[in-house]
Formats: sequence, structure tokens, C-alpha cells
Amino acid sequence: MKNTFGNSVAVTLFGESHGEYIGAVIDGLAPGIEIDHEYIANLLTLRRPNGDISTPRQEKDEYKIVSGVINNKTTGTPITILIPNENVKSGDYSEMKTVARPSHADYTAECKYHGYQDSRGGGHFSGRITAALVAAGAICKYALEQKGIYIGTHVKKCAGVSDREFNNLSADINTVNAKTFAVLDDNIGEKMKEAIVKASSEGDSVGGILETAIIGVPEGVGEPWFDSVEGMLSHIMFSIPAVKGIEFGAGFAIADMQGSIANDPMRINDGKVITTTNNNGGINGGITNGMPIIFRTAIKPTPTIFKPQSTIDFKTMTETTIEAKGRHDPAIVHRARVVQDSASAIVLCDMLSMRFGTDWMK
Amino acid sequence: MKNTFGNSVAVTLFGESHGEYIGAVIDGLAPGIEIDHEYIANLLTLRRPNGDISTPRQEKDEYKIVSGVINNKTTGTPITILIPNENVKSGDYSEMKTVARPSHADYTAECKYHGYQDSRGGGHFSGRITAALVAAGAICKYALEQKGIYIGTHVKKCAGVSDREFNNLSADINTVNAKTFAVLDDNIGEKMKEAIVKASSEGDSVGGILETAIIGVPEGVGEPWFDSVEGMLSHIMFSIPAVKGIEFGAGFAIADMQGSIANDPMRINDGKVITTTNNNGGINGGITNGMPIIFRTAIKPTPTIFKPQSTIDFKTMTETTIEAKGRHDPAIVHRARVVQDSASAIVLCDMLSMRFGTDWMK
Amino acid sequence: MKNTFGNSVAVTLFGESHGEYIGAVIDGLAPGIEIDHEYIANLLTLRRPNGDISTPRQEKDEYKIVSGVINNKTTGTPITILIPNENVKSGDYSEMKTVARPSHADYTAECKYHGYQDSRGGGHFSGRITAALVAAGAICKYALEQKGIYIGTHVKKCAGVSDREFNNLSADINTVNAKTFAVLDDNIGEKMKEAIVKASSEGDSVGGILETAIIGVPEGVGEPWFDSVEGMLSHIMFSIPAVKGIEFGAGFAIADMQGSIANDPMRINDGKVITTTNNNGGINGGITNGMPIIFRTAIKPTPTIFKPQSTIDFKTMTETTIEAKGRHDPAIVHRARVVQDSASAIVLCDMLSMRFGTDWMK
Amino acid sequence: MKNTFGNSVAVTLFGESHGEYIGAVIDGLAPGIEIDHEYIANLLTLRRPNGDISTPRQEKDEYKIVSGVINNKTTGTPITILIPNENVKSGDYSEMKTVARPSHADYTAECKYHGYQDSRGGGHFSGRITAALVAAGAICKYALEQKGIYIGTHVKKCAGVSDREFNNLSADINTVNAKTFAVLDDNIGEKMKEAIVKASSEGDSVGGILETAIIGVPEGVGEPWFDSVEGMLSHIMFSIPAVKGIEFGAGFAIADMQGSIANDPMRINDGKVITTTNNNGGINGGITNGMPIIFRTAIKPTPTIFKPQSTIDFKTMTETTIEAKGRHDPAIVHRARVVQDSASAIVLCDMLSMRFGTDWMK
Repeated sequence: MKNTFGNSVAVTLFGESHGEYIGAVIDGLAPGIEIDHEYIANLLTLRRPNGDISTPRQEKDEYKIVSGVINNKTTGTPITILIPNENVKSGDYSEMKTVARPSHADYTAECKYHGYQDSRGGGHFSGRITAALVAAGAICKYALEQKGIYIGTHVKKCAGVSDREFNNLSADINTVNAKTFAVLDDNIGEKMKEAIVKASSEGDSVGGILETAIIGVPEGVGEPWFDSVEGMLSHIMFSIPAVKGIEFGAGFAIADMQGSIANDPMRINDGKVITTTNNNGGINGGITNGMPIIFRTAIKPTPTIFKPQSTIDFKTMTETTIEAKGRHDPAIVHRARVVQDSASAIVLCDMLSMRFGTDWMK
Repeated sequence: MKNTFGNSVAVTLFGESHGEYIGAVIDGLAPGIEIDHEYIANLLTLRRPNGDISTPRQEKDEYKIVSGVINNKTTGTPITILIPNENVKSGDYSEMKTVARPSHADYTAECKYHGYQDSRGGGHFSGRITAALVAAGAICKYALEQKGIYIGTHVKKCAGVSDREFNNLSADINTVNAKTFAVLDDNIGEKMKEAIVKASSEGDSVGGILETAIIGVPEGVGEPWFDSVEGMLSHIMFSIPAVKGIEFGAGFAIADMQGSIANDPMRINDGKVITTTNNNGGINGGITNGMPIIFRTAIKPTPTIFKPQSTIDFKTMTETTIEAKGRHDPAIVHRARVVQDSASAIVLCDMLSMRFGTDWMK
Repeated sequence: MKNTFGNSVAVTLFGESHGEYIGAVIDGLAPGIEIDHEYIANLLTLRRPNGDISTPRQEKDEYKIVSGVINNKTTGTPITILIPNENVKSGDYSEMKTVARPSHADYTAECKYHGYQDSRGGGHFSGRITAALVAAGAICKYALEQKGIYIGTHVKKCAGVSDREFNNLSADINTVNAKTFAVLDDNIGEKMKEAIVKASSEGDSVGGILETAIIGVPEGVGEPWFDSVEGMLSHIMFSIPAVKGIEFGAGFAIADMQGSIANDPMRINDGKVITTTNNNGGINGGITNGMPIIFRTAIKPTPTIFKPQSTIDFKTMTETTIEAKGRHDPAIVHRARVVQDSASAIVLCDMLSMRFGTDWMK
Repeated sequence: MKNTFGNSVAVTLFGESHGEYIGAVIDGLAPGIEIDHEYIANLLTLRRPNGDISTPRQEKDEYKIVSGVINNKTTGTPITILIPNENVKSGDYSEMKTVARPSHADYTAECKYHGYQDSRGGGHFSGRITAALVAAGAICKYALEQKGIYIGTHVKKCAGVSDREFNNLSADINTVNAKTFAVLDDNIGEKMKEAIVKASSEGDSVGGILETAIIGVPEGVGEPWFDSVEGMLSHIMFSIPAVKGIEFGAGFAIADMQGSIANDPMRINDGKVITTTNNNGGINGGITNGMPIIFRTAIKPTPTIFKPQSTIDFKTMTETTIEAKGRHDPAIVHRARVVQDSASAIVLCDMLSMRFGTDWMK
């Protein structure tokens, strides 16, 4: 169902980068869930460009909730979030209308929408739409925390520089959630930022890897075929612009292991089944096993760069070159992490509601 | 919707390893599509265990189609495929019923199904269920070929041994589709088999990486949010038991690139837009750009091994050890490739039918 | 999703009248639900043609369950039911292949399936497919009874003869469920049968109205928009061949009432909210209110009659006449009632599982 | 999926009567569809209360489209429509918060939302939400007209007074679409209005029957099981507050016919298959046959009346009486007709896009 995702809890996204509003409808959340506006605003701030490693487009993301909430509690009916687009300079993009930016969706949008697409600032493909996903996900993430379920994402790698491994998950999740630039080791973070600034100064961009940890999810959630936890999470994650890969637990590294190493030995700890390693990332047969859910995504470097690139004009069908102007991020990996948290939160609310009923999230 | 996947073309899977039948319903395919039984049988044979690198369980997978087909043409109504389970020795598994096999779904099945699950041979979680997916996918794959769309998967890596890169895609797809052990370089294939046999002789197992190429898909297919081509393909791929990661185009390697390298330059070739590299794997903004769709999955080593492993009995909630008996694959990566082809074919038929209408597949 | 219906509990139907099997997959039912084969067989018997008021095609409907059940308990995974087609005389239908039977789906099938449809005995459009729906629904209906939810349908009207009103619902549901020809007043039933036999002797057919009552459904189930209880029930009921209308509570009669009469006064009875009339059929704003759910469907007379009718040959595009031969029901209203029960049971299991979680049905 | 309906074209509804905005997202419409604001405004005006037969609440429904449209053409991405709530007097409803209005959703909302629902003016259950459905449906209805598909609804019956039958459908559709009070015979319309005014003067309300005709739909659209045209239309129609029944073609009257009368004889007219009667309402086996689609809905009398009624306070669980104050419609049947048109248009766009691809609507 295209721009709507989920079964019991579903999110619908809408809007274009330079339209009046972007927004989201989050439907199916239990009634009585508290809305913490400071919490939502904080997640939106974390997604927003900041400082010299991000585009100077500085919007406040002053969202408003226009349905589904009274007295700061969900009513149980669809929650609609609107975020106005301010600070729009559509002139910056006029040149790009039929000259495709390589590795952007300009040409595929043309193929699908036959010239009717809104090409200003990426239109409906703009990363800006993720602000609405973050606002919707923030409500879900907060609700999950009230049930003892915590989500955190760090920049595992950026511009070739790697953060330390997750260690004490509960503490590490708190740590990264409190940071603007979400790394476990701030010295590493500084090196990442330096690498971003360096690429930026060369008119280039960098990518990275985001790692998410989720703790507190009850065991027994997910389906063996199709609506596995991995299937549902991956489905939504590939909507985050720039994600080109996802892996759970040991991920691609597991391909080189032997079974005797890869298998997670099982033990009993305080009357609860645990595994002593977590190469399966908390999921067996598509279903949660009570261990932390761990996954990583590959974020490609921002495609808009200030170097000349070979491209085509899809209207005249001629070859040409393009060189970006205006305001563009040299990296988005540090901003995307909060989108990843939010998308995870939405999927979890959906899967938990399917499993335990719509009142469980209350 | 749990065991059903797809919008315009949807597949429903059912069955347990030791039940009477496993099977699939594939619904929404256009009327008039030819059913090539030899083609289906061949794909089933490729999935089947073979020789000394696979379990000796040798079933013929004598599927039958009991609805939706007349005179070897689809009618347009649901096609039901039944595959009887023969050669069942359920005694082999009696010990395992409450002792969880590490990294299998035994414990998560217990959490979800509260002791009512069919634990014989993995039950509904068994890799055997993929035979039904292959039969359904074979119909789709054959139909796609009539429309000029070809899918091929090779064992990119197994037990740490890597195949050569895809090169001439059209020829390479033909090559791998004709092979039982799908590698581009047969010398490499021999080394992989040796590594599998070695691991097997040690009572251990190995994993690998599968790489799929799809050519001929028209541009403009897919959705920007949620039902992106990547989202849909990844959703179904994580249903293949043992898949722990998926990446498109350059995948995780793109995280280390700069934009100027990662971006795919665009050119015009014979009046058609192409890119000179394909780091995005044929997909921009979730939508096909006409270039080959390329993706890879990480296949974990078969969890059933013949070494003693620490585990738990989830009934008595005590710690114990387990050591596999019976017949088990030391690797499934070479068998899973045809499952990956089939799942891809189903998703493509669905997305093409959504885009161009149900008669397009005819 | 075409031949699949439901969200948390979903049913997929497949098969053709003269194919090898018809069947259903019912997915999402909780684990541990008892399968009562006598109960299923009984519902199938009630659907089956019987005596001189039905077609002499006498199949035993010897269904088998080939997945999702062990030791007569659901496993929680998809339950697949197969019913073999026996006693097939496809010769009877050879003439009809391109001459459309008026008010049948012959011509619309041609429009949709372009000549590839299975036209033998109605193919996928045959009322026979409802046997699979009944078997799936029987499992659901039995499960609901274990939770105190009871469903019963009587022939409210047939050939212009009306049964008495529902009175004591609990007793009346028991009464109709125990009968082959489900009327509350057996004298009326005899008159209906006489009218059916009379129409049959004239080569004609008759229709009727089915009324269903459901008691014991908790309040608070259903959605205000779209997935209202009425919306979900009506959606599935129109799949029953011959249904041309559905109404809830007072139904079309409410159109003539004034609000002061139509409104259901509310009272408190034994600490529970009740209404003293039930013109809304147990549903307000799409959501159950704890009162009995009451609805009626209009069943058209069987379209196959033994009188000559004006029709067309859609291959030659010429006008012609048709006169049925072979075995055909002069009425199906008395058989359809168990289909209506079954479809209701499936929808209720789905909506209750969505509301209270998948284990609620256990 | 709760507040979202449709497969290829889907609508999501949100908002509460006294919230900031109500609105709709309509997703999946082809790119390049013209937006005719006058057309949308006109349909909204037809839904709006007017004169002495409607509530004096006179809102202008000044909708705005905030995404998915540029230069008055659809972009192909989700179209979001916002309608601000003005003229809100929430004081009028303060008394009703825990005293349930009989035959309203007050009590069922409490059962589902546990006191968190927005009870002001009916909240999410308010008929006002249908304004958003109308705006979304207006876009679809206009798009269908460009493809030669026309929809019209008349008040078939109101307060026991019946309009004449549809006769020349093409002309009659034009006629009713041009009228504020949609009857074919204006003298009848005056009698209906008199009856409404009379009921209103007594503090009471009336209901009626709406009849919709749709011409120009190609044959071969719809599915045999579940997603039949009847199933899809009925599913959405029961979301219109006050609808308690729906019937297609001859509807409930067909139950009393014999097959020889009910069957629609088939002829060939100008090389096209037609039927000489249309008792099946243009649908056989769930699929369109090219004849006009005809259906009727039963609209209950507005439940809010100015007479004292027995009811309960669901907070104190005591019996009490209620007597409406403020502004309320004595009838909504004449306003609901445009909602019925709009809902029909949405379903048709969805089913046509599923059948012929997303570009067909262009």
C-alpha cells in the first residue's frame, strides 16, 4: 500500500520538500499514550542539520498535531502531524528540473511520474520527508519506553572511521540518545566530523554505517514467513533515503563463520533464557528470542556534491554535466540515525499490537 | 498479513516439514501464462539436496498443481501447488522437542506457539517450506522470461572462498541458471565444495553470500516510500531461513565511498538512459532506473551441527547440551540461491502488475 | 488482496469446481485451538445439497487438513484444508463454454480472463468453493463457541414465505444450528420446501433472505472508519455467490422510521449496558456495543434454470438461447446459511485477534 | 488497516469534529490528473448543511491541498487535503461527555478508547469527517469523468416519500449532480423537504434511501472472491455514518423473484454485450459486466433528536435521560448522497488502477 506501512499500527507519509506541509498520519496506536512534546521536539532537533557538517538550511520543524490527541494523550484515532516547510528557496533548484542529479531519484521520478513530479528540492523523495517519520516515530518510541523497550542508534562508521562496539547496551543506548552526534566514543566522533568537513571542503560527501540496538522486546513477536521481524524492519528501513543495505546480528560477517562459531549458545540466567553470543541479533526464525535486536544499515554518501558529474537531460535526451549549488549535506549518516530509531519504533508498535492486541501499547 | 505476501500478485505459504503436504497459493497472476513443468521441476531439483555436500534426504519434490491451471496455462485464479512430504523419519527429531537447537527457531516457536507448534523437522520453520516458494516462483520466473526479464543468482562466497564478479550479465545469468552448483568460475566452485566437505567431516557447517542479478525490468517500477523495490525484495528475502543481511548495488561497501565515487554517472546509450557504474543496484529512490537490479544476501551457516553445543530445555528450564543426529546439510547457500531467484520473481510479478495492470504479465 | 481476506486472521480460497481440489488456507489462528472434526463435517453436510430441493450432485466433501494442526489442535501456523472434487461430469457443461448463462459469471469471467478461465461447472466462481470457506469457518466458529460467542442463521424468507422472527436468541441459535433446513418454525419450513419443489417442477428457481444472529461478542470491537464490523462483514458476505444485499439491525426498514423510534434506548441490566431495542444490530459507529449482532442478506434465485433464456455467445458475438441441463439447485438459500455462519466466524476471529491479540482466540 | 482503505489507490481519513483539522490522504492516483477546485468546492457545498432542513452550523469547508498537487495537476504522490474546523462551539456538547446519546457511538467509543476519545461533537465519529472523504472523492470523481465514467446519486426515498425511478441514466446522473437536493422529481423533493421540516418541528428526525448509478465502467473489473465490486463498495459505504444496509441491482427484492424473472437476458447491441434488465446491478460473480452499476443504501434517521430519551451515564453506570440541545440535522440523507458518490469514486479508481495499472487513470 505504497505510502502507508504497517498492519495494526500504520504510518502514512506525505509531502514534498517545497510544498506547504510535509506530514504523517500514525494510526492504530492505543488510546491513553502520553505525548511528550519535548521528546518529539528533541528527536526532530537531532534529525535537523546542524553546524558545519550539515546543510545550513535551518528549519525549526515546528510540527503540530492536528488530530488524535487531546490533553497530551492519544485518543486511539489517527494522529496527524504537520510540519510546515519554511525557508524555501526554490530558485536554487530551477536548473535541475530536467537534468538528472546522478544517484538521486530525478530520473526515476520522471519515469514513474512522466513530468508531473514536484522536482523542487527532491519533492516527495526529499530526505526532509523523514522529519514527519521522526515525529510519528517519536510518539512510538516514547510509548515503547513506558513499556521498558529502548532503542538507540550510533554512527558505527563514517567516512571510514569506526566507533567502538556496543558494550553495555542499556547504558550505551542512553549515551547515544543524549548526543547530537551519536557515537559511543567522542574522540572517534571528532575524527568523523573532521573527515566530513574535509570531504565537504573538497566539494565531496561521505557515507557510513548506522547500528541500532533495541532492548526489552518480549520474546515471541514476529512471523516465520514474510512478516518476520527482519522482514518488517528491513522493509521500512529501505525507505530511508540513502540506505543500501541492512544486516542483523553478525550480518554479512556470519557468512564467513562456521556453525560452531555462529550459533548462539543458550543458557538460563535468572530464570530467563539467554544466549551468550548474539550473532542472530535477537531473532530466530523471524521471531524475537528476548535478546537485544541488533541491526546495521549502510548509508550511501549524499549524492549531491559540488564536483562536476556526467549526467543527462531526460527531456532533451542529451548528455551534459551537473555541479551542485546551494545548500547540501556532506553527510547525512549522523542525522539519519534518529530516522532509523523512529522507523524501528513504528514497526515495533505495529508488531507488538498485532501480537498482544491494541491495548497493549497503552 | 503473516504467511501471505504481495499486493497484486500474492503468495501464501503453508505446511510443515513432516506434515502431509507443504504448498503455496500464488494468486493474481495474469491468465494465459504458460506453465512449463520441466522448468518448475528443474528449479525444484536445484533446491534439492544433492551429493556429499548436502543432506542425504532425497525427496523428489513431486509437486502437483491442483488449481488455477488448465491446459498448461494459468486461468488467472489462484494457483495452488502441493508438494507431498515423503521419506519422513520423524523419530530422528523426537529428542529435540523441548531441547532447543541453538540458532534455530525451536525456542522462539515455543514462545509464540506455547507448545502447540509442530517441532518435527523444524515444522513450519523448516527450509523445506521453501520448495513451495520455489515452485510458485518458478511460474513467475518463467513468465518474466517471456517478457524479457531474467534473474540469476550465484554463490558469491562460500566458506570464505569467493567467486569471480558478475561480468557480462546476460551470459552470466544463463551460465548460473544452467548449473547445479551456481558459480561463475567452476574451479572456485570446486574449492567451495571442498571447504563444505571439510567442514562437514568436522561435524561443522558453513555459510556464504548469494548475489542476484535481474535484467530487463522496465524503469519506473517501485514506490518512493515503503514499497520501494529494495523494501519489497528485502521483506521477502528475510523469509528465507538463514538470511541475516541484504545489500543492493555496492551495498555496505558504499558506506566507505565518497559521493564522487559512489554516484553513478549517467549517459545515453542507443537512446536509452544508462549509468556507467551501478553502485545503486538499478534502484534510485526506491524505483527502478532500467539498469540491472543487483543484490546480495548473507546466508548463515546451517545451525544444525554435529558438535556438542550448550543449550537449554525450555520445558524443564534447565541447561543441557545438544549434538545433532540424522541428516543435515553442512551448507545450504548453494541450494538457497534458487529460493532467492524465486522470491525475486514473485516480488517482480507483483510490482509489475501493480504498475502496469494485471494483464501486463500475460 | 483478491482471494485472501483478513488482517490478523486471514483466509485464502482456491480451486475450481472440476479441478482436483478446492481448498482454503486459514492463517493467524491462535495455537492450541481444538479441531472438532465432527463439527466441521456437520457444517459441510449442512452446506451440501440434500434431497429433492437440491441438486443430486452428492459429494461427501471429505476434507482433509494437511497443515497447521497436530493432535487435533491448531499449531498457530497456516491451516490448509483440501476438499477433493469427486463425481465430476464435465460433459454436462461442454455446451456452455462460450454461451453465457444469464446472471452467471460466464461473461464477466471471459472479460477478465480472456478465454483462459476454467468454465467447467462455473470454475472458480462455483458455489462449490464455499465448501472450503465452510471448513475454514467451522474451525473459527467452534473456536468462538469456546469463548462464549455463538452464531446462527435461519432462512428468514424463501420463495416469498417468511419464517418467524428471532425471539430468544440463545435458544433460537441452538435450534437453527441443529437443523438441516434452518427455520425457526418447521411448518413454515415445509411451506418453503413446497414452494421450492414447485418452482423446481416448473424448471424455475427461487431466492430468499438469510438472517444471522451473533451473541457474546465483547463490546469495543471494530473501527470507526473502513474496518467497521459492518464493513468487514459485508465485504466477505458479498463473496458468497448470489448475495445481492446486506442489512444490519432494522436495515432498510430503518429508512422509514423516525429517530425517536429508530434510536435504541439504553438501560443497565445486571451491571451491563444494554439497549431495549436493537435497530442498530449491535453496532454503533462501526463498533460492537455488546448487543447481539444481527444482519440479513438477500440471496438471489439460482441463475441456472431449465427454461429457455435469451443470451449471447461471447466468442461468435451472436445472440442465442440457452436452457440448462444436468443437475442444478432450484434454491441455495437453505445451503448458503452455513456459508454465512462460516464467513461471519472468520471475520470475527480476525477482528477479535486484531483487538485483543493473537492469543485471545486460544 | 483501520483508517486507510484501498489497494492501489488508498484513502486515509483523520480528524475530529472539534479538532484543528480534519483531512484525508489520497495515495496512488496517477500523475497528471487535473484538479478542478470548483468541482471539489461544489461537492463540498452539496455535503454542507443548508437551509431549514439542516443544522445551522454553516462552515465553508475551505479545504486546502498541501501535498501531491502542482499547477493543478496530481504529481502521483500522496495528496493531502486539510479542512479546518471553524465555528466550533464545544460548550454545546459538554453535558454529553459521559451520558451516551442513544444510537450514537458515544458508548462504543468509550468501550474501545477507555475514556481517551475526543467526545466533542462526536469526535472522530462525526459525520463532519466525511467532508474530507468528499474532497478526496471529488478528485477521483472528476478523474473518472475524464475517462467517461459518471456517478450520480439521488434520494430514492426520504421520510417515506419516494422519488421516481432512474430512467435515462446518463441524463438522470447529470440532473441529480446539478441539484442541491438530489431528486429526479422536484415535486417529490418538495414533499420530502416538508416531511423533514415537519419532523424537525416535532424535535424528531427522518431517514431514507440513497440510490447510486455508475455508468461507463469497463467490463472485467473486480475479483470473484473477497475483492468483488460489491464487497469493496459495501466495505467503504458502511463507513458512512448512518448507513445500515446496501443492496445491488434488484437487491432485497430479488429474494422474492423466481430465476426466470431475476435473470438478466443478454443481447448484443452495437457490437457490445448488454442485458435487457439489470437485476444484478452491473456485477456478476463480483466482476463488472459493462452494464450500469446500481446500488442503494439505507440511511437511518439522525440519532440526535430533541425529545427526551432513555439512556445511561457510562461513567457512573446509572440510567438517565437525554434531550439534545444545539444544532442538529433532522435528516442527513440529502447530504450523504455526495459522500456516497465520493466513496464510490475512490473505490473505482482503486479497482481500475489494480486492473489496468496506475497510469490508466491519467
